[in-house]
Formats: sequence, structure tokens, C-alpha cells
Amino acid sequence: MEVTRLLARYVVSATYESLPADVVHEAKRSLLNWMGVAIGGCRHEAVEIALATVSEFSGPARASVLGRTERLDILHAALINGISSHVFDFDDTHLRTVIHPSGPVAPAVLALAETRPVSGRDLLLAFVLGVEVECRIGNSVYPSHYEQGWHITGTAGVFGAAAAAGKLLGLTEEQMVHALGIAATQAAGLREMFGTHCKPFHPGRAAQNGLLAAHLAARGFTSSTQPIEGRRGFASVMAAERNLAEITDGLGERFEIRYNTYKPFACGIVIHPAIDGCIQLRNEYGLTADQIARIDLRVNPLVLELTGKRAPRVGLEGKFSVFHSVSVAIIDGMAGEAQYSDARVADPAVVALRERVSAAPDAGVAKDECHVTVTLRDGRVLKRHVRHAVGSLERPMSDDELDAKFRGLVAPILPADQTEEVIRLCRSLERLPDSAALVKVAVPRAAKDRT
Amino acid sequence: MEVTRLLARYVVSATYESLPADVVHEAKRSLLNWMGVAIGGCRHEAVEIALATVSEFSGPARASVLGRTERLDILHAALINGISSHVFDFDDTHLRTVIHPSGPVAPAVLALAETRPVSGRDLLLAFVLGVEVECRIGNSVYPSHYEQGWHITGTAGVFGAAAAAGKLLGLTEEQMVHALGIAATQAAGLREMFGTHCKPFHPGRAAQNGLLAAHLAARGFTSSTQPIEGRRGFASVMAAERNLAEITDGLGERFEIRYNTYKPFACGIVIHPAIDGCIQLRNEYGLTADQIARIDLRVNPLVLELTGKRAPRVGLEGKFSVFHSVSVAIIDGMAGEAQYSDARVADPAVVALRERVSAAPDAGVAKDECHVTVTLRDGRVLKRHVRHAVGSLERPMSDDELDAKFRGLVAPILPADQTEEVIRLCRSLERLPDSAALVKVAVPRAAKDRT
Repeated sequence: MEVTRLLARYVVSATYESLPADVVHEAKRSLLNWMGVAIGGCRHEAVEIALATVSEFSGPARASVLGRTERLDILHAALINGISSHVFDFDDTHLRTVIHPSGPVAPAVLALAETRPVSGRDLLLAFVLGVEVECRIGNSVYPSHYEQGWHITGTAGVFGAAAAAGKLLGLTEEQMVHALGIAATQAAGLREMFGTHCKPFHPGRAAQNGLLAAHLAARGFTSSTQPIEGRRGFASVMAAERNLAEITDGLGERFEIRYNTYKPFACGIVIHPAIDGCIQLRNEYGLTADQIARIDLRVNPLVLELTGKRAPRVGLEGKFSVFHSVSVAIIDGMAGEAQYSDARVADPAVVALRERVSAAPDAGVAKDECHVTVTLRDGRVLKRHVRHAVGSLERPMSDDELDAKFRGLVAPILPADQTEEVIRLCRSLERLPDSAALVKVAVPRAAKDRT
Repeated sequence: MEVTRLLARYVVSATYESLPADVVHEAKRSLLNWMGVAIGGCRHEAVEIALATVSEFSGPARASVLGRTERLDILHAALINGISSHVFDFDDTHLRTVIHPSGPVAPAVLALAETRPVSGRDLLLAFVLGVEVECRIGNSVYPSHYEQGWHITGTAGVFGAAAAAGKLLGLTEEQMVHALGIAATQAAGLREMFGTHCKPFHPGRAAQNGLLAAHLAARGFTSSTQPIEGRRGFASVMAAERNLAEITDGLGERFEIRYNTYKPFACGIVIHPAIDGCIQLRNEYGLTADQIARIDLRVNPLVLELTGKRAPRVGLEGKFSVFHSVSVAIIDGMAGEAQYSDARVADPAVVALRERVSAAPDAGVAKDECHVTVTLRDGRVLKRHVRHAVGSLERPMSDDELDAKFRGLVAPILPADQTEEVIRLCRSLERLPDSAALVKVAVPRAAKDRT
């Protein structure tokens, strides 16, 4: 079975009209969420270092760094935007494979869209196809590939970037096979790097390398024509067990982007049910911290194993504290990047409330479930049972919630009018004649242009 | 055992004075051989395509493409020179691991030497250290890593390029650890790509990615501090069996470059003993084709399995024909790239002689051994038993033979005076104040400057 060729054939022949409406809608949600994390992350140390490094080598400045005024050649812009979008670990997740699908694909297509006219529809199509390719390849090797130690967002992502870029470049089927092959032979990224700058480097490099693969293939650079399924191809070499049928079954009918999810909170997913329950009670009862005598959580045991830090000292430690997370959820009504700053973790009001939070492990509670009991000083007891946390496939974030997440991430970087314009353009992307406009509003106006 | 740190510490602290004389001598032989294949390969289709592709993205043109007048930013120059040097499969080989050691390392150090003053000694030191790092890491995972399907020149090579570039950039021990880590998480290259443009792409990308890794580390980009030995690090993830002691045992005492070998002939190594024997007899007896009634070879069975093509039609097929190879060896006294052109394979004199060659498989004949019997038309019978082919560790190519190989490769590209100047500068590299001079003579003078 010529898996790579069948996949290439589908990518080359697919049209915007063949995409179901819900797939297009999910693609716009994915893109908006991705732009939010990329813009929000654009001042992170990893981005600053990488940008300073590659600026020395950058070619013609044809593409934007989201959220910043620097411009780079399209390969390096794709790298930096890919890094930026993953620094908060707040991007989208294809739960079955734990791939972060947008990270490798979005930077590649947006960079290309700055070099030639790409309609919103063409951009959406290329993006959906890129996500489809990387997630299907991911499905075919998961979980053994991931368990072996590969950061699958990097290894599968490079195929997605190559396919999406190749689609925009108008590759033939034969060229697309080679683009996927040149991608395969660059697939890289180790889980050992988690917790370091190299983690967000992986989607960035996947975007950049996939983009290069498509350009090389467009000019006739050759690879194996069985780069995925060959005896020494990607699947055999990089996964102990694989099911190649995952790559081709139901192509054009089953869309993996339907299974994309978005994190509502800027911390590990295990705390999300507790935060969710607290925000629900806060909003329904108009709770303030001083009303609350105590908060009691019944949680999956993993919550305390991974996030049991009682007295976090800095922002990053706050992400590993269910107590801090629940406290800011009550006080701020949210748990975005801003709630995990050093200042917020040290805030006396937050500290005082978190000391009134207790959590009991219960193996009968699922990972996306939580029982919250809030006891008020006036004696009332409020209870909430969260069966599936917001952001799960069963209870996806609404469009409004995604917009709010976007605003929260982007507020420190873009003026409000630009923020709203990104949302508007992204939400109506299929009607945009030239998607470069979307990138343009994602870059701060130079100081002198500001009112 | 902190393998990566020990390795980084050695690289950072090693001095030119600590290199034994034979190691320096071998480094110069490796560099000259590498420059020959890089210059000779610079017009290959894979190079043309890659160069045209990256020219669109190249930054400040600070580094040379060997053998050509185009200039690129140093990352892209390293890529192209790395590709160029492997297109003929005629570069050096570390036999124990089948790593081609110079391909990833030389392009990185030469590109850097064009951006800052690098003495010949510093260049030699960085080159030796890069080769040491990649071959030791290769030793630690060979053979399981290679058998799994990894093209070890790409996967181990990126460490060598990072170490060598990091040495020239003056990285601290801590930065060097991170440079090796950023290299580890880019390690890639599948054997499935053999026979396609992606094969030479691997050393090119290794050079480029290692060079980037060193630059990122220099600015503080972080990776895991156990990128090789960690639970989800390079060795665990990419090799079923490994021996990390290979990386650190006898550092500074045992030098892997001592085990580097050079191919005298531009074809698969299994035919080398037969070619060698024929050239010996030709030269000793002043043989010409018309004197010869027949040539009978007794060879290792692999020779006919891999190179048993009786009637090759094009140059590339000639490389898979022991009959053609022996025929040009008698007529031309060599078997370089020129002997594997389409024209040479179709030459009537060559065809006539190859039809008088026979080869008998004999399991008792070793892979680097051959029995040659030449029967002359005057009835004389000349015999030669080659125990170890020239180019093997037991019978290395002499300096003169390497010079001759260099001249043969470079003749179509550089004028004779420049060719001789490259040899001279390379042979006295430890006395060169600025090694950029070596690169400068490896680029053809613009047409108007030629006499």
C-alpha cells in the first residue's frame, strides 16, 4: 500500500468546497487560538534569544513575527512564530496523540501568505490539510512513538507543515510525495527537552523544515517515494508499533481537526476541572474571597501528584499548585497567563485564600472530573460536580470563551482595536480575499502610528 | 554518569597543543579529501536545486559555496557545502560506524572561518574535536542505531558540527552542553533516503543545524542538560542498545580521526580490491588494453551480488559493474568520477575490454581482498594478490594518492594553479594565520579575473 502517495494525492486534489462547514469553523477556532498564544508568547525569553540569533542570518524580510515589529525571511519567521506559540504550553491539543496541531502548520501557511496572494479559503484549506496530515501520521504511530520519547508535535508536525506549504505552492502529486519525504527525513524532537527552550523549538523547527521541504520539492529535489511506509522509513524507524491504515482510511471524510481542543487555563490540564467548578460557582453566586470560609476539592489522585505545591513562590510554580489555581479562579474569574505571574502568586489576597483550600485525592474521580465544595462564612455550603472540564471534547470552549482567551493573551501586546480586528478577520476568514491582512493586524503598529 | 557534560568539558578545554602530530596530519588529509569531493560535487543536480531553493531565503552573503561563485549566509553555505561533499559518495568513512565524518563538521567550521579570523590551528582543533564528538557518539549507539534505519552521518553528525562550531565560538562548558542538546533534538536522517537527493542532504543539514545549535547556545538558549544520556535522550530514543562509555573513555588520548579512511575509487568499496590489483599490474608492467587477452578475478561473493552488472549503460550503472571498473582501471589507471561518466561507460575501447573480464565468487576471499590474473595475448600470465585494498585502514592512501584524487575531482571546476594552492594551504594549515584563505582559493576566480 503506497501510503505516502495516497496521502499526497488527497492533499493535492482536495478543494475548499470539499470541507464540511464544521471543519472550516473548527479551523478558524484553531487559528484564532493559535494566534493568541503566538502573539501572547512573543516576548518570552526563548523567543527573544532565538530571534536575536537568527536575525544575523535572515534573508529578505518578507514575513512578520506575530506581535512584534521585526520581519524575517519566511523560513525564520515560521521558526520564531512556531516557538512563540508553544512557550506557554497553552496552544491546542489533539487529545488522541497529544500533538499540538497548529504550532507546526499555522506559521508555515501564514508566512507563505505574506509572499503571494492567498485567499482566506486557500489558507483555511491548506491549514486543515496540514493538520489532517500530521494528526493522521501521528495516529499511525501513537502511542509507541511517543512512549519511545519522541515529541510528536515536532516529529509529526513537520509533515503537516510540508503538506500545507506544498498545497499553497501548488505542488504536483509527485512533488508532494517528495515534500513529505524531505519532511520525513527531518523529523526530530526529543521529550527529554521538556521544560527547556527546546520544547517550543520543536513546533518552530517543524514549521520551518516543512516549509523548506515544500520549496525543495517544488524545484525537483528528490526523496524516497515511500518515506513513511518504506522498510527504513519514518514509521518503521521511529515507532515500535504502527498502523498505517490510520493514515489513509476515510481520507476526506473523517477530519482530525474535529478532535482539536483548546486549553481554557494556562496550567496543566489535570487542574482544569477544579478551576472550572470554582469559576462556575463564583459567577453564579457572585462570590468574593472574603465570603469564603473554605474550599474543599475531591480530585483525581494525579492532581496532587502533579500539582500539589502548597506554597508556590514564583509564577511557574503556581502552575503546579492546584491551591493557587483555585484561589485566582475565585478572585479573578480566570486562570490565564496573567494569573501565573510572580506578582499574582505572591499577592496577599491570593495567598490568604489558597490557605483555605484543601484537596482530597479520590481514585473514583476521573481525570477531567472534580467535586467542589465551597463553605461560606455565613454557613451556606455550595457544591458543584464537574463531570467534564471545559476545554474537553465533551464540553468544548465556546467561541465566546475562545475570544476571551484570545483577548487575555493579546492584551499586553496589541492595542484593543487590533485585537478585535484579528478576531473579526479570523472569524470571517473564508471571506477574506488576501489572508496577509490577518497577519498585518497581528503586528503592533509602530509607535509613531499609534494614537 | 554525566556523559554530555564530560564531553562538553573536554571540547571546551582541549587545546591545539594537546593534539598528537599524527592526529593533526590526519585532520589535514581529511580536510583536503573533503574539499576535493565538495568542490568536485558542486555542479551536481542536488546542489543546483538546493542552491536555487535557499538563495531565495539567504541572509547576508558572508560564506562561500566551494567551487562556485555564489555566496550565502553561513547557515545556508554550510548546508550546500555539506550536500555537495556527499553527492558522489566519495567522501571519508569512519569504518567502525560508517559515519562520513567530515561532511557535517567541515562545512560548519569553514563557514565560521569566513566571518571572523580563525587561525589554521584553531580550525584544525575545532575540526578534530567535531569529528571526535560525532564518531564517539556514533560508537556509543552503533550498530543498533544504524540497523534501525538511521543515516548515522546525519544523526551523529549534527553533534560534531555543534561541537566544532561551539569551539570556534568560544562557548562555556554550560553553553556547550546546551549546544549538544539543541543538536540532539535535531538529530535526523533516514536510510530509506539512500539513492535520492536526501542522502547528501543529511550531512548538509547536520552541518547547518549544528551550526545553528552553537549560535543559539551562545546566546543562552537552553536544552536538557542530559540530552544524550537522559531517559528520553538521544541514546535511549534512537538506539536499542548503547554503550555510553564509548563517549567518554580515553577522551584526549584515543582519537577517532586516526580511523578515518578515504576512498581511492568513486564506486562501492567492494570493488576496490579488484581495481587496486589491476592498477598495480598496469603500472608495473606498463600494460595497455590491446595487450590483454583476458582478466580473471577471484572475489568475495558480495562483489557480484552488489556490482555484477555486465553491461552498464550509463555512468551510475558503471559504479555497479566490477567489469567496467576493472576495464577503466587498466585503460586510465584510475577510477575517479571521470571514469564513471556516461561517455566513459559507452566508450568502445572500455566496452571491448570489459567483455574480456570475468569474476568468480569465492567465500574464502575477504571483502577487502582480491586475486587478479591477467593473461596477455603473448601468453604471459600476471598475478596479483591484494590482501587489503588501498584506502583500507591497513593500507591507507598515501598523501600523494590523496593529492592525485583531489586533482582529479577538482580539475573540471578550478584552474590548475588554484588546485595546487588549495593542496599547499591545506597541507600547511597549522601555519596559516587566517584559514579564510583556504576557502578563498577553493572558489573559482570570476571569469574576468582569469588569464
